[in-house]
Amino acid sequence: MDGAYDRVVELAKRRGFFWQAYEIYGGVGGLYVLGPLGVAMRERLIDLWRSIFVRRHGFVEIDAPALGPYKVFKASGHVDNFKDPVAECTKCGRKFRADHLLGDAGVSVGEGAPVEELQRLLNENHVKCPECGASAWRVSQFLTMFETRIGPYSEEVGFLRPETAQGIFTEFRRIYDVTRERLPLGVAQIGRGFRNEISPRQAMIRLREFNMMELEFFMDPEAPCPYLEEVMGDELPVLTEEVAERGGDEVVRISVEEALRRGVIKNECLAYFMALSMRFVSALGVPRDHQRFHGKPARERAHYSAQTFDHEAVVPGFGWLEVAGLAYRTDYDLRSHSSASGKDLSASVKLPSPVVTRKVRWRVRSVDELRNAVGDRWKDVMRILLESEDPGRDLAALGLRVEDLPVAREEVEEKVNVRRFYPHVIEPSYGVERLMLASLTWAYGVREGRVVLSLPPSVAPVQVAVFPLVSRDGLDERARRIAADLSTTFSVFYDDDGSIGRRYARADEVGVPYAVTVDYETLEDGTVTLRHRDTWKQERLPERDLPGRLRDLLAPRTSLDHGEQQG
Amino acid sequence: MDGAYDRVVELAKRRGFFWQAYEIYGGVGGLYVLGPLGVAMRERLIDLWRSIFVRRHGFVEIDAPALGPYKVFKASGHVDNFKDPVAECTKCGRKFRADHLLGDAGVSVGEGAPVEELQRLLNENHVKCPECGASAWRVSQFLTMFETRIGPYSEEVGFLRPETAQGIFTEFRRIYDVTRERLPLGVAQIGRGFRNEISPRQAMIRLREFNMMELEFFMDPEAPCPYLEEVMGDELPVLTEEVAERGGDEVVRISVEEALRRGVIKNECLAYFMALSMRFVSALGVPRDHQRFHGKPARERAHYSAQTFDHEAVVPGFGWLEVAGLAYRTDYDLRSHSSASGKDLSASVKLPSPVVTRKVRWRVRSVDELRNAVGDRWKDVMRILLESEDPGRDLAALGLRVEDLPVAREEVEEKVNVRRFYPHVIEPSYGVERLMLASLTWAYGVREGRVVLSLPPSVAPVQVAVFPLVSRDGLDERARRIAADLSTTFSVFYDDDGSIGRRYARADEVGVPYAVTVDYETLEDGTVTLRHRDTWKQERLPERDLPGRLRDLLAPRTSLDHGEQQG
Repeated sequence: MDGAYDRVVELAKRRGFFWQAYEIYGGVGGLYVLGPLGVAMRERLIDLWRSIFVRRHGFVEIDAPALGPYKVFKASGHVDNFKDPVAECTKCGRKFRADHLLGDAGVSVGEGAPVEELQRLLNENHVKCPECGASAWRVSQFLTMFETRIGPYSEEVGFLRPETAQGIFTEFRRIYDVTRERLPLGVAQIGRGFRNEISPRQAMIRLREFNMMELEFFMDPEAPCPYLEEVMGDELPVLTEEVAERGGDEVVRISVEEALRRGVIKNECLAYFMALSMRFVSALGVPRDHQRFHGKPARERAHYSAQTFDHEAVVPGFGWLEVAGLAYRTDYDLRSHSSASGKDLSASVKLPSPVVTRKVRWRVRSVDELRNAVGDRWKDVMRILLESEDPGRDLAALGLRVEDLPVAREEVEEKVNVRRFYPHVIEPSYGVERLMLASLTWAYGVREGRVVLSLPPSVAPVQVAVFPLVSRDGLDERARRIAADLSTTFSVFYDDDGSIGRRYARADEVGVPYAVTVDYETLEDGTVTLRHRDTWKQERLPERDLPGRLRDLLAPRTSLDHGEQQG
Repeated sequence: MDGAYDRVVELAKRRGFFWQAYEIYGGVGGLYVLGPLGVAMRERLIDLWRSIFVRRHGFVEIDAPALGPYKVFKASGHVDNFKDPVAECTKCGRKFRADHLLGDAGVSVGEGAPVEELQRLLNENHVKCPECGASAWRVSQFLTMFETRIGPYSEEVGFLRPETAQGIFTEFRRIYDVTRERLPLGVAQIGRGFRNEISPRQAMIRLREFNMMELEFFMDPEAPCPYLEEVMGDELPVLTEEVAERGGDEVVRISVEEALRRGVIKNECLAYFMALSMRFVSALGVPRDHQRFHGKPARERAHYSAQTFDHEAVVPGFGWLEVAGLAYRTDYDLRSHSSASGKDLSASVKLPSPVVTRKVRWRVRSVDELRNAVGDRWKDVMRILLESEDPGRDLAALGLRVEDLPVAREEVEEKVNVRRFYPHVIEPSYGVERLMLASLTWAYGVREGRVVLSLPPSVAPVQVAVFPLVSRDGLDERARRIAADLSTTFSVFYDDDGSIGRRYARADEVGVPYAVTVDYETLEDGTVTLRHRDTWKQERLPERDLPGRLRDLLAPRTSLDHGEQQG
């Protein structure tokens, strides 16, 4: 629905899905609260994500700290790269994101443009300060991680994680051990991410603190993707890197198979997770033709990525919104942490048969003779003979020839049983609040002048409402008992406040798919009314049939795995 | 089991419940990772808590930011009060918690001792620096909130919340609105808390970042507690404030009824939540006679509290550990935020019948006459006559008497329909990691030389293990299918690695209550073996009866509400 975004933001605040935090203190930009309905919806959304991305593969989930020491984020590349360009007005001192200032002034500039370019464009276009009207900018890079001190010493700098991913990479060794050293290994983490945005504006979109669902999928880069078969025929809407690079926005719709064959997607497992991502976002109610995978040109990609697709969804009344990122991180992360920590983060696979290689070794016949031959340099020569991969070259650098030394040539066989490598990583990463916003705006509709939120039952915060027709003659006690019984299986809301019509309207507005009404007939014959949110149709059934009927109606879990056949 | 603490910490690390974070970088004190089993156990523990504290009362749950601006924590009292005494060695510069240094040196000192006293005790007892051996201390107060900047301006100080509670108080107005202004109102929050401990030492106990489950229960202080009846007979082990004050540790075991009658517990709802707390912690496997409510003397209580009981549990091999705090926060929080923000955070209840009060009002007969009588001061006099609660007194301050003014005395009746007040708050607050530790240590046992973790099924990370006797002849496929089917209802682990005996042992060690084995008989007659963790007994049953049998065995939810009848 057009304009749904603004209406959803208003509804969310009024009914308790979400609102800006610290309102009584004037609010803080980029900080939001999930209210009672928001938390309930988030829990269901997380459960849906787990069922699609984690449980069906037997992957594991961990929970690492949000705080990390300087060296972790130095090694990960964030200290050097996780920056946004800030333009400070040298007249009034206000600060803005340089690229957003230019965008607002109608000057388009890609992500990752260098500081000098932004400074030049602000100057050339005489962009004015929104605060004081001056046009005197100083552009610099601003580290968008929140910085703090861990412990009582001022030198112990720490950061709040901008993504949950690093907490998986730094713990890879132990996770790999406790899961008995098998690849592929999927490790999920659901938790907070923090980004110190310079001047966040849109509600629930550019947040300084947000909920993430991330999966780091570790694999042998030489092994085929074991899950691929199932999704080969799935269609993906792709805005390729090449099209994005030249500023276009044409989307090609191609099967997973074709995308891999044509090299549009560079890794099989990346393609697999993109297909799952389509199923997941479609299950939230976003139509397939309002989604796309936006390939990121090299200069717009994060520092760790060999290929990245932003999974974007149209949010009615707002436009295209990135709801997920799917990145092929290669072995960047494990390699970096391995090198920075000095700890081995590699994996190994057993080779089908040992590989035998022949090597030439030089054996020193007598150390005394060697000393006589080369003098003080004998230790260096020994080291070269034992360790160098090319003794001839290294000896030549000392002005020596191996033929002149008192050494014997030997040929040895080396048998290798395993192949060691740093696992490569595919990362699907989701923003919970943005997914909620996409789901809510697509669910928003008006029927006979009343708002109906047609949320998919799998993410509706309340599944069943129970109403007594009136709050007397025992109808309320009966309804309460039914509500209590149903709540062992479903998420239930009991309401006896106001007319039954108003109660239906209130339930429709927050997306409750089914409402049960207890009336005088119930007392006589034990039947109740079951009302459907999206059709307003009612059916009459015995109270004892309710759990079964509701279970049938409320999308069984298995269908969620095949979201693409529904959307 | 004696020494269980150390063994559990070892087991937790080896099998993946929890371990110190950033091990590859040498670790960071007070930061821990929940591994795959830890996350699974936490999720079940949270669900159990929600069922006991939230769902059964129809309370709501919100999720507020972990970051908050300076003024919020100034208003809450944390900026001024949330401090620990730090002793800095003036020789080597190392810093320690002053009270812990004294404790290690055998000098006992209560929580909340003033800086001067700690300085004096360190000097008098010549306490040595554990680092350099010097004895030259400088004691000061250290703010144990993590500080950062929100946004790009250096003056925008923010903190990471040390408790989730403030995020409920600052949002009270809107939560109260969206839940239709009813009291009592229970608002839960489950999420991270952060405390910048000076030098955390024990594994998983003194954490810098931890998971909390908090409930803020808002009530009319004049209304009776609506839930009390159910728990009146529950027995509570109490170490009273008075006993604690004089350093004693005798516990009295009294019923909720008696505790209230004797004034040991000062608020009915506080007593109710203490009874629930006993049921909850008992359901985690901590025996009732190894729990106590430790009343905190005034100087050890947080700044907001009128009465606080620490719910303590014995952790075998460690000793008494605070696993929860139950505080009567009065109206401190809402009053403070109301006054600091200028926003109304009061509630109102309709009075059964309007209260009529008589008031005297002074009506000015003529402004001109008043001007003639008092000159320039007429505006002040007008204001006093209209607004003052005691016009006689305020006029006297100006040297005037009401009898001399051109005013008429009137008596009016004022009818008041509502009573306005700041809701009072009872707060039960739980530390997830500490509860896990208590549950794990009580579950730890050895049977015939093998470790068996007898976790209550309600918190066991894995509920059912499924094994094929051997990985061939179709046994593995059959077992995999059974595992997949069961996993729609239960938390299931499939394992085909190693001998069946080793697999049972591995499952016992991480507390899997039931194991299903598929063997050659299964292929013939469709029966499987179901093995019980705690007795090692096996039963044979048809595959199709498994879900029902397991549902019966895995403690039905309803019994958790009555944990006290089980323990």
